[in-house]
Amino acid sequence: MATGVWLAGGRGSVAVTSIVGAAAIRAGLADPTGCVTELEQLRSPALPALGDLVFGGHDPATTRLCKKAEALAAAGVVPARLVEAVRDELAAVEPEIRPVPVAATQLESAALIAEDIAAFRFRHSLERVVVVNVSSTEAAPAPHPAHADADALRQALGEPGAVLPPSSLYAYAAFVSGCSYIDFTPSTGARLPALDALAHRHAVPYAGHDGKTGETLVKSVLAPMFAMRNLRVRTWSGTNLLGGGDGANLADPGANAAKATSKQRVLGETLGYEPQGNTRIEYVDDIGDFKTAWDLITFSGFLGTSMRMEFTWHGCDSALAAPLVLDLARLTAAAHRSGRSGPLTELAFFFKDPLGGAPGPAGGVPHALAEQWAMLASFVRGLADA
Amino acid sequence: MATGVWLAGGRGSVAVTSIVGAAAIRAGLADPTGCVTELEQLRSPALPALGDLVFGGHDPATTRLCKKAEALAAAGVVPARLVEAVRDELAAVEPEIRPVPVAATQLESAALIAEDIAAFRFRHSLERVVVVNVSSTEAAPAPHPAHADADALRQALGEPGAVLPPSSLYAYAAFVSGCSYIDFTPSTGARLPALDALAHRHAVPYAGHDGKTGETLVKSVLAPMFAMRNLRVRTWSGTNLLGGGDGANLADPGANAAKATSKQRVLGETLGYEPQGNTRIEYVDDIGDFKTAWDLITFSGFLGTSMRMEFTWHGCDSALAAPLVLDLARLTAAAHRSGRSGPLTELAFFFKDPLGGAPGPAGGVPHALAEQWAMLASFVRGLADA
Amino acid sequence: MATGVWLAGGRGSVAVTSIVGAAAIRAGLADPTGCVTELEQLRSPALPALGDLVFGGHDPATTRLCKKAEALAAAGVVPARLVEAVRDELAAVEPEIRPVPVAATQLESAALIAEDIAAFRFRHSLERVVVVNVSSTEAAPAPHPAHADADALRQALGEPGAVLPPSSLYAYAAFVSGCSYIDFTPSTGARLPALDALAHRHAVPYAGHDGKTGETLVKSVLAPMFAMRNLRVRTWSGTNLLGGGDGANLADPGANAAKATSKQRVLGETLGYEPQGNTRIEYVDDIGDFKTAWDLITFSGFLGTSMRMEFTWHGCDSALAAPLVLDLARLTAAAHRSGRSGPLTELAFFFKDPLGGAPGPAGGVPHALAEQWAMLASFVRGLADA
Amino acid sequence: MATGVWLAGGRGSVAVTSIVGAAAIRAGLADPTGCVTELEQLRSPALPALGDLVFGGHDPATTRLCKKAEALAAAGVVPARLVEAVRDELAAVEPEIRPVPVAATQLESAALIAEDIAAFRFRHSLERVVVVNVSSTEAAPAPHPAHADADALRQALGEPGAVLPPSSLYAYAAFVSGCSYIDFTPSTGARLPALDALAHRHAVPYAGHDGKTGETLVKSVLAPMFAMRNLRVRTWSGTNLLGGGDGANLADPGANAAKATSKQRVLGETLGYEPQGNTRIEYVDDIGDFKTAWDLITFSGFLGTSMRMEFTWHGCDSALAAPLVLDLARLTAAAHRSGRSGPLTELAFFFKDPLGGAPGPAGGVPHALAEQWAMLASFVRGLADA
Repeated sequence: MATGVWLAGGRGSVAVTSIVGAAAIRAGLADPTGCVTELEQLRSPALPALGDLVFGGHDPATTRLCKKAEALAAAGVVPARLVEAVRDELAAVEPEIRPVPVAATQLESAALIAEDIAAFRFRHSLERVVVVNVSSTEAAPAPHPAHADADALRQALGEPGAVLPPSSLYAYAAFVSGCSYIDFTPSTGARLPALDALAHRHAVPYAGHDGKTGETLVKSVLAPMFAMRNLRVRTWSGTNLLGGGDGANLADPGANAAKATSKQRVLGETLGYEPQGNTRIEYVDDIGDFKTAWDLITFSGFLGTSMRMEFTWHGCDSALAAPLVLDLARLTAAAHRSGRSGPLTELAFFFKDPLGGAPGPAGGVPHALAEQWAMLASFVRGLADA
Repeated sequence: MATGVWLAGGRGSVAVTSIVGAAAIRAGLADPTGCVTELEQLRSPALPALGDLVFGGHDPATTRLCKKAEALAAAGVVPARLVEAVRDELAAVEPEIRPVPVAATQLESAALIAEDIAAFRFRHSLERVVVVNVSSTEAAPAPHPAHADADALRQALGEPGAVLPPSSLYAYAAFVSGCSYIDFTPSTGARLPALDALAHRHAVPYAGHDGKTGETLVKSVLAPMFAMRNLRVRTWSGTNLLGGGDGANLADPGANAAKATSKQRVLGETLGYEPQGNTRIEYVDDIGDFKTAWDLITFSGFLGTSMRMEFTWHGCDSALAAPLVLDLARLTAAAHRSGRSGPLTELAFFFKDPLGGAPGPAGGVPHALAEQWAMLASFVRGLADA
Repeated sequence: MATGVWLAGGRGSVAVTSIVGAAAIRAGLADPTGCVTELEQLRSPALPALGDLVFGGHDPATTRLCKKAEALAAAGVVPARLVEAVRDELAAVEPEIRPVPVAATQLESAALIAEDIAAFRFRHSLERVVVVNVSSTEAAPAPHPAHADADALRQALGEPGAVLPPSSLYAYAAFVSGCSYIDFTPSTGARLPALDALAHRHAVPYAGHDGKTGETLVKSVLAPMFAMRNLRVRTWSGTNLLGGGDGANLADPGANAAKATSKQRVLGETLGYEPQGNTRIEYVDDIGDFKTAWDLITFSGFLGTSMRMEFTWHGCDSALAAPLVLDLARLTAAAHRSGRSGPLTELAFFFKDPLGGAPGPAGGVPHALAEQWAMLASFVRGLADA
Repeated sequence: MATGVWLAGGRGSVAVTSIVGAAAIRAGLADPTGCVTELEQLRSPALPALGDLVFGGHDPATTRLCKKAEALAAAGVVPARLVEAVRDELAAVEPEIRPVPVAATQLESAALIAEDIAAFRFRHSLERVVVVNVSSTEAAPAPHPAHADADALRQALGEPGAVLPPSSLYAYAAFVSGCSYIDFTPSTGARLPALDALAHRHAVPYAGHDGKTGETLVKSVLAPMFAMRNLRVRTWSGTNLLGGGDGANLADPGANAAKATSKQRVLGETLGYEPQGNTRIEYVDDIGDFKTAWDLITFSGFLGTSMRMEFTWHGCDSALAAPLVLDLARLTAAAHRSGRSGPLTELAFFFKDPLGGAPGPAGGVPHALAEQWAMLASFVRGLADA
């Protein structure tokens, strides 16, 4: 039965790559490379099929999907022949990506979002809808007392002014509509006590934060390697050069700080101490949709011998993100169906800054990729058994 | 109680770094950085203490240990102040590193090796001795029918001529002396059916092959990362520039081929297919004891998008190897004490080319570092329970 | 007045990129980026205009030019829109790229080559024709006594068997037809005393060898930098990973050796000594028309302090070569018109292994790029004055 | 005859490395690697001999020279055996590095500086003294009207308050003492109209700014390479990780901005346009006296094909700077003797931000290393002829 994927940021690079890719895979024109739920160890009848995903969403931009897809093809993100081949499917999704509703209060805005989702669900007889935030990174919002309590939040939303950042308003609208929610960005999303309470009240799961697509993915295997070998990392310093829309957005100091912090977290969590150095993000328009990251790691070995490692990662963020969006939609929908609610900490594999806090005596989630993988595999097996 | 470590190649860089390091750690002058058996998750009362290891060995070279240690200090492998501080300990080990015995037949040579080990054991009242091969890499030996059968082997060794390469003759001498054996090199060592049978007959364990100290260590976490993300690795091409004694030895085509093959194996095993490209080893005298490896990895993501990663590893092989030699000696001695015999496949974590064959329906050992780590941790827990 | 460019290897990547590019620039659809004769300091009325070049050639392959151009577009070497735009021009050149003539003796083959060139010249009323070798790299030929003398050569060519490699047979045919000749490859070309004599006898100039398009270009500025700063280069070790047709060809040990030698020569010539290390070429099909080179340089500074530099060059050889082919054709045609004959050593700027020998008391050509540039600029000024 | 080198910052890494090195070379214990004035093409009888340099200076720090030299040896900047060997020479220089004089007005401070220099000159019967600023980088000073006029400056200095930054006060004291002045840092130094006038009035030459020791040195050969090949550089983005005292100082935003600007200038000057990207400096304490710089360059070739180059430079700034300080002292002293006064624009070879302004119709100095070299060689020949 069909499952809806409602994309906040539905005309952006990640969203359109996901839509083009799902269509191409359904048509047998492309392999599901990059989709981890298609790996033998994670494939499961409990997940909705890739071909059963139906796309809709909101976006303030008005660029037509096929134009955006052509631009992605020109930038080397997707093959031009696939864009040609799925032109009809893009035309079918076109009316489903609607303008962002705006009303006098955030409560009314949320109601309009919920209406759009409900209409989409009805139109396509969807079993359920997963709301996915793939819009641009926001700056951290100002704290507000209503963030702590679901009822106070509803009341505050009914008054003029902005209580929630857009990513959180989507989470709000998703939860009250009985939809699960995924935040693929470093924005706030569902990470507020009031929204967590709401997710539990409406018995819906949520997942996040910040898709792990490049440099941090590499860190999440290299940092455990140094830890497992009892080598002492002294410096870990990273530079990220990125273009495209998200790059320009991240040049904004607020958004940049949020992202840089989330990128460095994996080190402290897996090493047990903070090495020197930090992660810089620089916007370079010319680099386009590809990103180049360079990391220098200096470390001490036996008797203090000083050694070093460097790596350069040259990846296409949208092409790395899109299959994970499809994976997360399938996994979250299946979790919802199986009765899970609240944070899906078992999906830490996908995120730079996974829900569930640091590992420790009181629990928390691992940041090492192999442990995250084991947790994910066990989660998928659990879905099948449910 | 004291445990002997008998080093074939006892005046080489790895051996001397191990001896200096064990003495410095025992004296409280250095941390056990790089020793994985000192990590909280692997520390175990079942292992002999680092301070309980006693060193002896064979070497055709006659350089005095303190001279070699000074040379290592000059090359930046160990700190000069530590060499100064452990000068007395080196002097004490000096007479225990003896010339390699040579006799008319390999059987007689093996007997002389066994005598040296027995005398060492008696002299220090050792509970047991672990023989560790850290000598230069050999070319692959010519096949011989006696390699297949323990009794035929004994008979053949009694005749003039070389039936076994040196690394295997050490394994032979170790086993018949009731000693365990570790091969830290890519040489043949105990990997012959006749020797395996002998290990079982004498109820001693053995471990190997080819310590995983640098580029292959990195491969063993990066290759699983690509596999877990369902990204298709198309090319993995590596260049290793190395100096020092082993570098010159590896410039020999036979030894080079053995090493290069063992370095590329991890890719096929963890990815499930062989990407294009290979691993080259080049000897550059000037680089000395440090090694620089550069790897280029090209891969396809979603819809075939082409991406790439490069890394440079600049490590000191002896400083990376020495703590692992200490770890392996402790683990193998403990396994011996606990009654294990034959190949210790659970020690795959330490090796480029681990004993136990490829993973598959019929068993085999994993090449992904995180799985190897889990297997090692479980092995250590088992020792404690035994 | 129109100048002919006769391409040995006229359906290969370099040739077709040159043809597409010249047509696109003529049509005002592309800038002459990469063409050094369009730089302000080198622009000269003495050179035939880019728009006055007319292309023909030989190739054993039969792929149609537009098909090859489409393949180059798919590989990212040229933009697809330009290939579309110059489709008519490619169709016009199509019949001018003819099969390689083969006859009973090399003399008869040379005569057929000369006939093809003469017919091409007549058909287009060309002022003169430059023959350019852009075909695959050959292995070094066996020595032959007739290589030393022009008359002996003619006689030997008249007998069955191969006296000259193909690149040299083209030089022969060019010279006897009164055409200048450029070898853009490391093959033998005109570098035989008999051919040099012939060039002088027919009063035609020639240029070569081995277009400097990537790693060697970088070496030709970095090596002088170290020399000018009195820094001692200890190791310079390079790895070249390349795909495409030339890559496969260079995997052949003979061709590889020729190329690797020519790539390392710049170091000895500009540093005055040979650092350790060498240059490796590895064929990796997947890399296609792009090439990745990695070089490690270790050097000593003041009081022997050890330092290092690495670079990675990721370039498209055909896109780097094609504008230089156009430059060389223009420069060589102008030199011919101005009465020059024999080797054009002033064109060293373009070549890995420039004609004219090492610099020294007896003359020779510089390998440092800045000196080569100064020599080239002075050469161009000389043409204008002539 | 002996020449004095008066070092502002005489107990810092660059100064002490220079002093140790000059002594070691004089004693025949080290080669003058890194000293360009010892290259065959630049060697000249017009220059004072390396062995004729006598060192003195000022420093607010009180670390003894031999302690500092030992620290430099421990950090790998200079060999420990050389420090041992020149211990007596360091002891002899020890009293010549005096505390920085401070008085009620800057004019009185300058007078005390001048007295110290005069006493040093007298004590050692020096032919002349070169004042060299190798102290930490300053933030740019606030503008002051007295910067424009030498007489107004003298008057302003006589009043309380800081009119000049320390680097400029040294230039003032040098000029009024009849000494030449070199600024090896990006600080203001002699770059004020009042000081330039004073240099001319006292007939002394000066040189600067900001010793070109690493990343910028590489840029000054790579940028011309792209220009000479008519390749369009689109992005040039650099990251500098540095430790040591200067690193911490450069973490100060004011100093950092001064340095980063001077590091990027070479690109605009040699390319003729400003590519995207900038240069970042990050302080990483653990890196110590070595610096790691990583640069990414993306460029377009023929028909717009996109290509890229990366380099990593791992150098020891003090070891790269010290021989240039010796070179500059010799060259500036010789220029002074030959009657030169005002800015020595011919020494651009040594500096990131050379005196003399951008090249253009109105003159200016080149930023390409090869042109700077040619200018330097001609300057040295001119000295010999004078």
